[in-house]
Amino acid sequence: MKLVLFEAKTVSDVRELLKEHLKNIRLKTEEVDLINSFGRVLAEDVISAEDIPGFNRSTVDGFAVIAQNTFGATDSLPALLTLTGEIMMGEKTKVKLLPNQTVKISTGGMLPENADSVVMIEYTQTLDSTTLCVEKPVAPGENVVSKGEDIKRGTVLFEKGHTIRPQDLGALASIGKDKVKVIAPPLISVLSTGDEVVSPNKPLKPGQVRDINTYAISGQVLKWGAKPETFGIIGDDYDKLYSAVKKALESSDVVLLSGGSSVGTRDHTVRVIENLGTPGVLAHGLPVKPGKPTVIAIVEGKPVIGLPGHPVSAMVIFELIVRPIISILLGRPENYGGLKVKAKISRNMSSAAGRQDFIRVHLEDRDGELWAVPILGKSGLISNMVEADGIAEIPSEKQGVLQGEWVEVELF
Amino acid sequence: MKLVLFEAKTVSDVRELLKEHLKNIRLKTEEVDLINSFGRVLAEDVISAEDIPGFNRSTVDGFAVIAQNTFGATDSLPALLTLTGEIMMGEKTKVKLLPNQTVKISTGGMLPENADSVVMIEYTQTLDSTTLCVEKPVAPGENVVSKGEDIKRGTVLFEKGHTIRPQDLGALASIGKDKVKVIAPPLISVLSTGDEVVSPNKPLKPGQVRDINTYAISGQVLKWGAKPETFGIIGDDYDKLYSAVKKALESSDVVLLSGGSSVGTRDHTVRVIENLGTPGVLAHGLPVKPGKPTVIAIVEGKPVIGLPGHPVSAMVIFELIVRPIISILLGRPENYGGLKVKAKISRNMSSAAGRQDFIRVHLEDRDGELWAVPILGKSGLISNMVEADGIAEIPSEKQGVLQGEWVEVELF
Repeated sequence: MKLVLFEAKTVSDVRELLKEHLKNIRLKTEEVDLINSFGRVLAEDVISAEDIPGFNRSTVDGFAVIAQNTFGATDSLPALLTLTGEIMMGEKTKVKLLPNQTVKISTGGMLPENADSVVMIEYTQTLDSTTLCVEKPVAPGENVVSKGEDIKRGTVLFEKGHTIRPQDLGALASIGKDKVKVIAPPLISVLSTGDEVVSPNKPLKPGQVRDINTYAISGQVLKWGAKPETFGIIGDDYDKLYSAVKKALESSDVVLLSGGSSVGTRDHTVRVIENLGTPGVLAHGLPVKPGKPTVIAIVEGKPVIGLPGHPVSAMVIFELIVRPIISILLGRPENYGGLKVKAKISRNMSSAAGRQDFIRVHLEDRDGELWAVPILGKSGLISNMVEADGIAEIPSEKQGVLQGEWVEVELF
Repeated sequence: MKLVLFEAKTVSDVRELLKEHLKNIRLKTEEVDLINSFGRVLAEDVISAEDIPGFNRSTVDGFAVIAQNTFGATDSLPALLTLTGEIMMGEKTKVKLLPNQTVKISTGGMLPENADSVVMIEYTQTLDSTTLCVEKPVAPGENVVSKGEDIKRGTVLFEKGHTIRPQDLGALASIGKDKVKVIAPPLISVLSTGDEVVSPNKPLKPGQVRDINTYAISGQVLKWGAKPETFGIIGDDYDKLYSAVKKALESSDVVLLSGGSSVGTRDHTVRVIENLGTPGVLAHGLPVKPGKPTVIAIVEGKPVIGLPGHPVSAMVIFELIVRPIISILLGRPENYGGLKVKAKISRNMSSAAGRQDFIRVHLEDRDGELWAVPILGKSGLISNMVEADGIAEIPSEKQGVLQGEWVEVELF
């Protein structure tokens, strides 16, 4: 086995290195219909070209008034106003209120000129077709959303890199955006390696295991908004691996290798990367548990990551290294990620100083307090990941956590 | 306006009523390729037909041994074993260990007969091609995942109704599931109403507003795993609304109406529902703020929901009423929903007893404690929803919350 010597780099060192290498990358954009932009990432700032609403708008059913004309009104001494008509929905009214005049208005209707507020219908009585009793005063601006109060013209409603949620679709619609410029999802090649690994649609022979990583990793790729391209299983053969990775590099933005756990396969991975282009391997091995045997490389501007063979380790390294790469390629903010909650750990857990440890945990609500209960067991077991609600971190500067200590848990 | 009198029903009353009406509904299923099952809902329990792993598997690179032969071994007094060969990856070995024999094995390799543990390569020295020094004892089972230790044959790995996450794809692959039976996404018709409402691709005239709700609501439909079918904007006309809702009922599983806020439009909605079929309107008005003017109906077995016209109110009622309907139609557990966290409220907020209040909040980390800061402002403003991180609830039995009190916040 060719010996590769590197200074041990921490996860944040590696992230900085990758950021540096990817800083000049040109993100691909595309324009989609508003409704198809859900979950996508904005490619440009969105600035409102209009005031929203574009007019003073009633928020209740009632009567548009000049507030001053209602001051002091009570049940027993109502203000008497002259009812001059009704505001039609969706139209600009030609009505202009004179002192002590009023017009009927529905929720969403446009206030007539001079009106500054709306009295709710509940606080009025219609005496005859032209006389309205107002039994409660309103303040100027009451029951009205004024022009531009929701969104002012020129407001940056969203910055580029923002991931679009349901309410954002509504906000984009409100300012007339029926097409949205978003970042195209990066293509991520997923390759599994190893002579012992077979596809899930094949019967297992003794000594064989099914290809878990292609599927778990593709799921993570999808979850974070990129597009997986699966290459299936490459046997334990240098030439086959070389041509598969070469092909993957041509057709995608990132190449992920994983699966094979034999010494031979791991050796091939490093050699293939070194021979495909420069600068090649940036780091080999990460001070992380689980996930030590990781290879981080850049080949002709594209990240190539050799993930550990153990499915749990591969998934942890994906979140630590690949998810930030996807964020860069989608133009997302650096800290974009899963939701983190604080919880108390239910038992002592030891860790080596200088190593980040990630522990699969259940979350339990105990008398209103959140507790993280470690799921013990060997790190290669996929059933552990299925049972877990999230992953707690023991930072590298600590040698463990004590029962009852607060830990940060990233939720699945 | 036709007067509709109902006893005031709470949100949970309405949910129970809907559950009762939908209890015999037949869920549509479909079979998809494993990788396409990400985010989908399982239509059946998944039971493993095999032990995983199917054989005793090494978790390290090293030498397979009979643990007893290493007992007492140290650096200075190593156990000397006879090295008889190497286990090939992915193959059943014909080797059967005799006492004091060992074979080389890689991570993932299949243990030979009689071997019960693996010594890591770091704790061995190869003296010559047939002699191995073991410098540290191993316990039986050490560095081995035994047959069925990850997933036992006959284990219910997932129950139907489970939503598939990345690690679940891995687990399904591990037991050989390359096709997955999932629930077909329910079709949800989304109709906007009102003469003042125009499509986002049209210029606004004075008095008009753009159709926000079609987009915000379609986003929510997508977020929760259903499929929106948009019907655009229906003007303030009974006949047009009647035929649009009739068409929507024929082509979809749920019909959502919203948008028009004039008295006339709201009146039409109730009449249309009453005339389309039985049992018709189940509840009219909900003791919820924002969101009071809601119409809940079942027409020939299908839910028809009239959402409030205000976008924020419509979104809140969607989460309270429509999301549980989607869960039923996807066969999800009843409590499936957004993530909730506990936070302290940053100011006093009043509420009416008997009414559930929902407050849009920012979340802030203050000295390691999570605080919910209410976003004040009129409930019709979409910009409020854009700024919010989640929604805090003041339950109906309370008349408010005091600064520093714990509230539950559902995150967006």
